[in-house]
Amino acid sequence: MRYELYYWPSIQGRGEFVRLALEASDANYVDVARETGAGMGVAAMIQLLDENNRPSFAPPFLCAGKLLIGQTANILQYLGPRHGLGPKSDVGALWAHQLQLTVMDFVKEVHDTHHPIASGLYYHDQVPEAKRYSRHFVDERIPKYLGYFEKIVNDNHTGYSIGRALSYIDLSLFQIVAGLRYAFPKTMTRSARQYPRLIALHDRVAARPSVTSYLSSPRRIPFNQNGIFRCYPELEA
Amino acid sequence: MRYELYYWPSIQGRGEFVRLALEASDANYVDVARETGAGMGVAAMIQLLDENNRPSFAPPFLCAGKLLIGQTANILQYLGPRHGLGPKSDVGALWAHQLQLTVMDFVKEVHDTHHPIASGLYYHDQVPEAKRYSRHFVDERIPKYLGYFEKIVNDNHTGYSIGRALSYIDLSLFQIVAGLRYAFPKTMTRSARQYPRLIALHDRVAARPSVTSYLSSPRRIPFNQNGIFRCYPELEA
Repeated sequence: MRYELYYWPSIQGRGEFVRLALEASDANYVDVARETGAGMGVAAMIQLLDENNRPSFAPPFLCAGKLLIGQTANILQYLGPRHGLGPKSDVGALWAHQLQLTVMDFVKEVHDTHHPIASGLYYHDQVPEAKRYSRHFVDERIPKYLGYFEKIVNDNHTGYSIGRALSYIDLSLFQIVAGLRYAFPKTMTRSARQYPRLIALHDRVAARPSVTSYLSSPRRIPFNQNGIFRCYPELEA
Repeated sequence: MRYELYYWPSIQGRGEFVRLALEASDANYVDVARETGAGMGVAAMIQLLDENNRPSFAPPFLCAGKLLIGQTANILQYLGPRHGLGPKSDVGALWAHQLQLTVMDFVKEVHDTHHPIASGLYYHDQVPEAKRYSRHFVDERIPKYLGYFEKIVNDNHTGYSIGRALSYIDLSLFQIVAGLRYAFPKTMTRSARQYPRLIALHDRVAARPSVTSYLSSPRRIPFNQNGIFRCYPELEA
């Protein structure tokens, strides 16, 4: 089966957590909105978003055969056990999903560093608020979330966040560290020694052949100023 | 088995979505932080939050036998099929959970109406930003989310959001409507005719004997100015 991933074609965004899982497991998939031709492109995504009996509120969503699944963490919950990227047991799956939902909560808070007032406004229309939000984000929220995940990885004693092998949680934590390094480079350099296991996990994930191959391919969209992780130096002052 | 729910004792908050599911299914549970005595109270909650091998990032979390489950939507995903409040099939469960995750995204945006800058600050320290955020929230986000859920209920043709019977999604949508009526009464009165099926669903849920009984009991904490839904008239100007 070939999966169809539907997500915005010019950003990593929330879709990147799904892309990483598909790439790390060498799954067969097409990134629909990035392709051209019949049934491809952003128009096809928008159409499927609205015109089906289980509409998603927003991308990403994944078509798996007859199944259409929305919400990033929900997609990963589906993919994980099917591709060796998460526990198959109910109990293990609940714990993995709980961690992923906490990752997604953090992702929303990252997004709000540049859009604290409204996602419908441009960044340049909410800069003073973004500066104030980001001060608290850097001082309070980064340490709280990264400290939490550092403890999770540390207490698991395997170098991974759950179990003895790579999971979609590890891929998501890789993305979090990579994204924060792009968006808040000074903060991440300064605080690196507080999160040694998280950073080792980042490096371990990046060194997986399937991940290395993906990251150096044109399929990996570079971080940019339209995504969730954006580098505005004034937000890190 | 008696469930143990761990959540802040003086607010509805995110815990209320779990309380509603437990109450609607007449489940046996104790709301630990609201009780006194050995092993009860907020201190017991804080201790269990930190001192277990699967720590939650924040309340609510649910103890079900040996299982400890965090993240509101994850708890509901667990409870739903076990108490006749959600589909048992994998496909149905994914769809229900997708909707619940969208409810939780909305809940976070509701929270930010009074805390757009930092959850660690008081409301009165971020009033100008809250006013600006709330204007966009009322004009753009309420219609987008409620319009989405109105379509879901409408297209399901049963008066419920999924399937032919009450689910935890319906309980959550009840709470959304009730909470918005408390927090943004003028907006909800003005826009009621845009969401007839959602409001009919709210009334249908409220009329369920188990829910009616809960809502009129002291177990239902009233809406107040410490929860997610808060009534600050200046935010609806």
